[in-house]
Amino acid sequence: MAQKPTLPKGTRDFGPAEMSRRTYLLNTIQQVFEKYGFAPLQTPALENLKVLTGKYGDEGDQLLFKILNNGLGDPKNKDKAQRAFSNVLSGVDDANLTERALRYDLTVPFARYVVMNQQQITFPFRRYQVQPVWRADRPQKGRYREFYQCDADVIGTESLQCEAEIILMISEVFSKLGLADYSIKINNRKILAGLAKLIGANNPADFYVAIDKLDKIGEEGVLNELRSKDVSDGNLAKLTPLLEAQEKGKVTISFLKDVLNEQEEGLKGVEELEEVLRITELMSALPSQLELDLTLARGLSYYTGAIFEVKPTRVQMGSICGGGRYDDLTGIFGLKNMSGVGISFGVDRIYDVLTELNLFPAEAQNATQVLICQFNAETYPASLQLVSQLRGAGLRTELYPDAVKMKKQLDYANKKSVPYVIIPGQDELSNGQVTLKNMVSGEQQRVEIDKLANVLSEVDK
Amino acid sequence: MAQKPTLPKGTRDFGPAEMSRRTYLLNTIQQVFEKYGFAPLQTPALENLKVLTGKYGDEGDQLLFKILNNGLGDPKNKDKAQRAFSNVLSGVDDANLTERALRYDLTVPFARYVVMNQQQITFPFRRYQVQPVWRADRPQKGRYREFYQCDADVIGTESLQCEAEIILMISEVFSKLGLADYSIKINNRKILAGLAKLIGANNPADFYVAIDKLDKIGEEGVLNELRSKDVSDGNLAKLTPLLEAQEKGKVTISFLKDVLNEQEEGLKGVEELEEVLRITELMSALPSQLELDLTLARGLSYYTGAIFEVKPTRVQMGSICGGGRYDDLTGIFGLKNMSGVGISFGVDRIYDVLTELNLFPAEAQNATQVLICQFNAETYPASLQLVSQLRGAGLRTELYPDAVKMKKQLDYANKKSVPYVIIPGQDELSNGQVTLKNMVSGEQQRVEIDKLANVLSEVDK
Repeated sequence: MAQKPTLPKGTRDFGPAEMSRRTYLLNTIQQVFEKYGFAPLQTPALENLKVLTGKYGDEGDQLLFKILNNGLGDPKNKDKAQRAFSNVLSGVDDANLTERALRYDLTVPFARYVVMNQQQITFPFRRYQVQPVWRADRPQKGRYREFYQCDADVIGTESLQCEAEIILMISEVFSKLGLADYSIKINNRKILAGLAKLIGANNPADFYVAIDKLDKIGEEGVLNELRSKDVSDGNLAKLTPLLEAQEKGKVTISFLKDVLNEQEEGLKGVEELEEVLRITELMSALPSQLELDLTLARGLSYYTGAIFEVKPTRVQMGSICGGGRYDDLTGIFGLKNMSGVGISFGVDRIYDVLTELNLFPAEAQNATQVLICQFNAETYPASLQLVSQLRGAGLRTELYPDAVKMKKQLDYANKKSVPYVIIPGQDELSNGQVTLKNMVSGEQQRVEIDKLANVLSEVDK
Repeated sequence: MAQKPTLPKGTRDFGPAEMSRRTYLLNTIQQVFEKYGFAPLQTPALENLKVLTGKYGDEGDQLLFKILNNGLGDPKNKDKAQRAFSNVLSGVDDANLTERALRYDLTVPFARYVVMNQQQITFPFRRYQVQPVWRADRPQKGRYREFYQCDADVIGTESLQCEAEIILMISEVFSKLGLADYSIKINNRKILAGLAKLIGANNPADFYVAIDKLDKIGEEGVLNELRSKDVSDGNLAKLTPLLEAQEKGKVTISFLKDVLNEQEEGLKGVEELEEVLRITELMSALPSQLELDLTLARGLSYYTGAIFEVKPTRVQMGSICGGGRYDDLTGIFGLKNMSGVGISFGVDRIYDVLTELNLFPAEAQNATQVLICQFNAETYPASLQLVSQLRGAGLRTELYPDAVKMKKQLDYANKKSVPYVIIPGQDELSNGQVTLKNMVSGEQQRVEIDKLANVLSEVDK
């Protein structure tokens, strides 16, 4: 009768140990978001299919997890179901089969929320959102079907101060997490658009896709790819000094201004970049990890201004954080002229980086601090009072629930990494004392019951 | 082009104001769970359909949100899809159409987790879990298709100390939330089973269902319902004194012992109840809200010992918390003899009760504490330094991103309920000062910039 239960492919349970580390990671990011004035938003896992389809390209549409409408097996729905099924077999979606899907990212639900609540929202609106998303992707190492996104966006202002704040938030998050070896790459879509015009690319996207590959396919590769898109050799020659400077890490603002000198849009991008750096420096200092990367394009997404990406440098891992400015996120739902800028932390990857570099703090977050052992029936009433007393003092305390051998109780504390154990022996109790055992050092001491909460609160610091 | 976006029926967005209250509510419950030694667990939203079906009765199976398999429209899957569709039309589920569903509660995923990880788990295992669940129920006031459950369970011990701890956790949670007017009803399934035997009910479930309705249909109603299930008048007469005592609130332990005097299982239930009360009293005091309620049955669920339910008494609302002991939760997945006891807080209903009684704290959780206005271009660099300085001191601070009219900036602070605003005027700045405005009292004062973080940290307490 009993089935052996399994987990769906690409999904995970987070037990107490993982939860402790994830809580530490997510709290660190959320606290930084809140210090910068971002307020939390949560949207439902289920969205209407109409809200989601067409927003992530054809490939994205294929990766949506769609919800089967209920009641399809009901005889009175038979005709509807029959029609729906034949539509699906001809490759046509049918609302009689599915009308809802799981959210694919946090950006489209955020845009939907802003549009639906535009009358109530105080703009500029700073929101952060930490929730799972679902994608029917092929699972592989580091790629899950259910994973968390952790986004912060400001919408309703064009102020470049927001870009500067994003740079400082990134720097502060990783500094708090103890990660120093990473780079914050910054670029601007307007610069890329200017360069695309400069070389006469038919479609700016062709240029974004090509230059994005510089570190993979090298200068010649990029030039060949552009040549295949009908960019003339004369035009490609304009690009060469830039690619060489990028490969040598020698791209500067003044160099860019020279190259782009006639391209209005490109120059606008350079000026934005300059202003972002100026504001960042006035607020604090430019993080040493910040670098201008002309090859950063962030795919074919909706960005229109600054773009960001963070990569660890000591660990083999793709980008762990990315974002940028967009001018028309809510336009898809009819609300125009809402410029915004956002950042997304890839918490699953950051978790893996911190694990690999052994950067998680040793103490478990919010785990049991004290275990009181159950000694015998005579001492049980005193133990019951003791556990209440310690909890009353705010200590996370357990009283072992069964009168089993002391070894088993100590094993329990060991396996759960409970740092302190109290053994309420009969003799000690009659003197108003208990034995307090430090499970890390093995050290034991007798402590007056009245002083126990104080002693434990002290040592716990 | 632009669609007017909508939310799926029965789902909700939680904007910053709701999130602040929900965070307060969930943190309060979680902190109590943690003080009692419970550790967090999270399971995926998606579960394999096989894990879920057959666990919630036929009605529950109908309410599962099933996920459509991907690739059904793909021509090479046509045959499979065709077969799946005709199966569904005949009312048969087909794994070619759907293999996964959204979790329906937190209990079955918990049982699955325990069974899959039994080798790694240290028993007794105390876990809490706060996650959304999904049910394709008809939405109505207070009933959603996506809602949160907030569960704590101990599994792997029969110790009645756990029941006592549940009573004290309930009492502590509601005390921290400021709710005093509620009752904690307690009963024991063994007592109900004993009574069912006492009156010769063919099926104990008939008795549970009938007695559960005492406050709705009265003594006569209960007796009539049992009569319709072939309980003889002679047997029903044994029940009358009990029902009368219950209606008068006069059921006591010794009275129960008298009534059940020959029923071994029933007497076992009474002894368990007595022991739970004894332990609770030794740990702390019996909460004044605790009452023995013989009509409490908690439906047809898997409980085998103590059962609990909490109802507010000053607000019209169903149960806001419930739970009990079960002997065979993991048996469905092949792991026998795992007794456990759990409690579930209905956070959506508790949220409504606290709102109705105006019990949420006035201060928003983790919202912006200080807004620095943008005065003019000359003062902007000093403002940028100031915002960094206050954030460095741990204050949640915003600098208004645009140089708009002061009125608009103050409106922004007002609408967001930011308690303090800093106006960095040019004259004040040249004296190393700023104007600090208390947005609640309207009071303004000049403060030295160096002392600002201290002043704000003080007033924020």
